[in-house]
Amino acid sequence: MPNAPRVVIVGGGFGGLSAARALGGEPVDVTLVDRRNHHVFQPLLYQVATATLSPGDIASPIRWILRRYRNVRVLMADVAKVDVAGRTLDLADGGSLPYDYAIVAPGASHAYFGHDEWAPMAPGLKSLDDALEIRRRMLTAFERAEREEDHDARDRLLTFVIVGGGPTGVELAGTLAEMARRTIREEFRNIVTSRTRIVLVDAGPTVLAAFPEPLRDVARTSLQRVGVEVVERTQVTAIDAGGVRLGDHYLPAATIVWAAGVAASPLVATMGMPLDRAGRVIVEPDLSIPGHPEVFVVGDAAAYLHQGDRPLPGVAQVAMQGASHAAAMILRRIAGQPTAPFRYRNYGSMAIVGRGSAVADFGWLRLTGFAAWVGWLFLHIAQLIGFRNRASVFVQWAAAYMTRQRSVRLITGSGTRR
Amino acid sequence: MPNAPRVVIVGGGFGGLSAARALGGEPVDVTLVDRRNHHVFQPLLYQVATATLSPGDIASPIRWILRRYRNVRVLMADVAKVDVAGRTLDLADGGSLPYDYAIVAPGASHAYFGHDEWAPMAPGLKSLDDALEIRRRMLTAFERAEREEDHDARDRLLTFVIVGGGPTGVELAGTLAEMARRTIREEFRNIVTSRTRIVLVDAGPTVLAAFPEPLRDVARTSLQRVGVEVVERTQVTAIDAGGVRLGDHYLPAATIVWAAGVAASPLVATMGMPLDRAGRVIVEPDLSIPGHPEVFVVGDAAAYLHQGDRPLPGVAQVAMQGASHAAAMILRRIAGQPTAPFRYRNYGSMAIVGRGSAVADFGWLRLTGFAAWVGWLFLHIAQLIGFRNRASVFVQWAAAYMTRQRSVRLITGSGTRR
Repeated sequence: MPNAPRVVIVGGGFGGLSAARALGGEPVDVTLVDRRNHHVFQPLLYQVATATLSPGDIASPIRWILRRYRNVRVLMADVAKVDVAGRTLDLADGGSLPYDYAIVAPGASHAYFGHDEWAPMAPGLKSLDDALEIRRRMLTAFERAEREEDHDARDRLLTFVIVGGGPTGVELAGTLAEMARRTIREEFRNIVTSRTRIVLVDAGPTVLAAFPEPLRDVARTSLQRVGVEVVERTQVTAIDAGGVRLGDHYLPAATIVWAAGVAASPLVATMGMPLDRAGRVIVEPDLSIPGHPEVFVVGDAAAYLHQGDRPLPGVAQVAMQGASHAAAMILRRIAGQPTAPFRYRNYGSMAIVGRGSAVADFGWLRLTGFAAWVGWLFLHIAQLIGFRNRASVFVQWAAAYMTRQRSVRLITGSGTRR
Repeated sequence: MPNAPRVVIVGGGFGGLSAARALGGEPVDVTLVDRRNHHVFQPLLYQVATATLSPGDIASPIRWILRRYRNVRVLMADVAKVDVAGRTLDLADGGSLPYDYAIVAPGASHAYFGHDEWAPMAPGLKSLDDALEIRRRMLTAFERAEREEDHDARDRLLTFVIVGGGPTGVELAGTLAEMARRTIREEFRNIVTSRTRIVLVDAGPTVLAAFPEPLRDVARTSLQRVGVEVVERTQVTAIDAGGVRLGDHYLPAATIVWAAGVAASPLVATMGMPLDRAGRVIVEPDLSIPGHPEVFVVGDAAAYLHQGDRPLPGVAQVAMQGASHAAAMILRRIAGQPTAPFRYRNYGSMAIVGRGSAVADFGWLRLTGFAAWVGWLFLHIAQLIGFRNRASVFVQWAAAYMTRQRSVRLITGSGTRR
C-alpha cells in the first residue's frame, strides 16, 4: 500500500509483537525494528541460564512469527534515536525510517544503580546472550572446582550469589540449587556438589515483595528446603573479581548474577520526554506521549500512573495489553475518531520456586506448591510461540522431570565477550 | 583404586568416549581430559550451522555420558603437551597428569593449506562454536540483504560459497539451498531469497570423491536440482573480506565456509613422533607409537598404514573401533599378554544431499534418494547419545520435515569472537 499511513514499531518483545499482530491486515504500512532477529520468551530465560532448556526452545525468529502479515515488514537494526519532532527513527548504522505513527516498546535492561562497573562481574538476565553467559559461568565454576586443590579456592568456586529476590532471582536460585544437589551430583569425583552454597540476597524486607505474605512465606520455605540461603534486608555494597560484600560481610564467590534492578531502555531518553526514576516515559492515559498523539510508548519503557497507586508492573501482560491498545488507538486516529484511556486487566502473577513447586496469585485465588507449578507450566507452554517450541519444551520438561538430567549443560562461547 | 594403573585419555570425541567406556569397570584408574565439557555428535554439526537443530540436540556433557563408571574421572582442561618420555600430560594452565598408559584421541581441526589468514573470512565446522558462528553469519547475511538498497551489494550478501565437496560441504550446501528456497521465502519483503546463489567449490575432479561414481552423480544432480552451483576442478586461490577468487575469477560473496581440509590436532606434534603430511602420527599395527608401547593414538590424529592401500578415513567408526582396540590392548598388557594388530571393519559411508535425499555406500549395497535418507536419519538418531537428544531430535526433524520451518534461526553472539 504505497499511500497507507506508515507505522513503525520499535522492539520485538511481547509489546512489539502484539502491536504488529493487531495491525496485521489493517490498512497501514507497518515496519517492526529490533536489533535482534528473534523474540525471546523472557519468563523462561532462567531455564536457559540453568541449562534446562535450549535457546531455540524459548525463542523464535520475529520474521517467522509475523510472516503471514503481508503489510508488516521486519528489519534487524539498532535504533539510535526516536526523533519525535522529525517523525523519524534514526538507525545506528546511519539509515533512517520516517513514520506517521510510532509504537515504542524497547523494553528494559539491567540497572546497577550507579555501579555499572559491577556489570562484568555480575551479569544480568535479559537476553539469550545473557542467559548463555550465565550458563557458561555456572558450569565452568563446577569444572574448575573439580580441578582445584586449595580448600578456600574451591569453596569460592562453589559459592553462587544471586542479587535480587524478585521472580527471576527466586527462579534462578531454586533451579540452580536443584541442579547442584540432584542433577549433577554423581558426575564429579573430587567435589561434593550438594555442598554448593547458593545465596539469594535482597535489599528489601522480603523476597517476592510483590506477592501476598502467605505466598512469600511459602516461597522462602521452599527455597530453604532445597538449600538456598535467603538473605533479606541486606544490601550489596561492593562486587569485585573475588566476591561480593553483603553489608559489612565479604563473601568470596566465583559466580554472581544480577537480578536486582531494571531500568527502561536508554532509547526512550532520546525522545526528550519527562521520565520517571527508572528512566521510563511518563505516558498519557491513552499511552501516547505529551504533545505527540502519534507516538505511543508501551511495556517496560512506559510509566503509566493513571491506574492504581503505583506504576503498572514490568510484566508481559502489561506490555501486550498496552500494545494492543496503542494499535487500536492508531486505527481510531486514522479513522478520525477520538482515543480512549488504557485500562489494564490483571490476570494474576506467578513465580516458580523449584522442581514441582510454585506460587501463584490470581487475586481471587492463591495457589502454592505443585498445583501452582502445574498451572505455571501449562500457562507458559501454552503461550510459547510456534509449534516446535511448544512440543519440544514439553518433551524436554517431561524428560527433565522424570530423569532430572540437564542435557543442555554445554559450555560454549569464549567467555571474552564481556 | 589407589594402586591401579593410571590411564589417561585425551579427547572426548567418538574415540575418547569409546575408550572410556571400554575401560569403565576395569581395574584401572581412568582420567579423560577434554578442553570442552561436552561431546559433539559431529555428523550433525551442519544441522546446527544451518539452523535446523539446537546445540543441545547434538551435544551432551561428557561427565553425564560417563557418570556411571566410578573408575572414570573427567577433567575439563587444555592439554598442551604429551610428554612421552616423562609419561605425563602437561596442561595449558600449568598442571600435569602422570600416566602409566595413554590413549591420545584429540581429533582434527581445519587446515587452510598454508593460508591461515583465510580463517577469519572462511570459518570451518568442527565445534559447536564454529556451527553457531556459521549460523550467525548466514542469517545475518539475509538480514543485511533485506536492508541493502545497492544492487551489487545485495547480490554479494546473497552469495554463499562453500569450499570443499566432501560430505560436510555437500550437506551444508544442500540444506542452505533448501532454507533459502523454501523455509524463509515468505518472510522477507525486499529480497527474493530463492535467488540466493549457493556455490559449492571443489579443487578435485568431483564432489564426494570417496564415494562410488554412480552415487557421486546422484549427489551432484540432487544438489543442482535444489539450486546449488557445483564447481569442480577449481581451486580457491584467494579469500578476502569481499569475496573469493576461484581460479582466475573473482566472486563477491559475503559468506564463505571452509569445508575443504583437515589436519590432525597440533597436540600430536608435541609427542616427537613421525607424522604424515596431514600431521597425523604414523602408528604401529596395534595403534601404539614407535618405542612407546604404553601410548596409543586413535581416530583422526592417527595415520594407520597397515590395512588397505591408503590411510583409514577420518570417520567416527574408525575412531570408535580404534579406541576400543587400544583399550583392550592396555588391559592385555596389564595382564602380561602380547598385543594384536588392529583390524578396521567398514560398515559403510553416507552423505545427506537435501531434504529427503541422501547417498549411502555399504559396499554390498548402494542406496540413493529417499531410502538412503531414511537410513541415514535412523542410523544417526540411533547413535545419538542420551534419551533427551534422541526424542528431541526426532520431534524436531519430524516438525521440520512437515512444516519446513527453521525455529532455531537465532542470531546470538557478538560476532567479535574471531
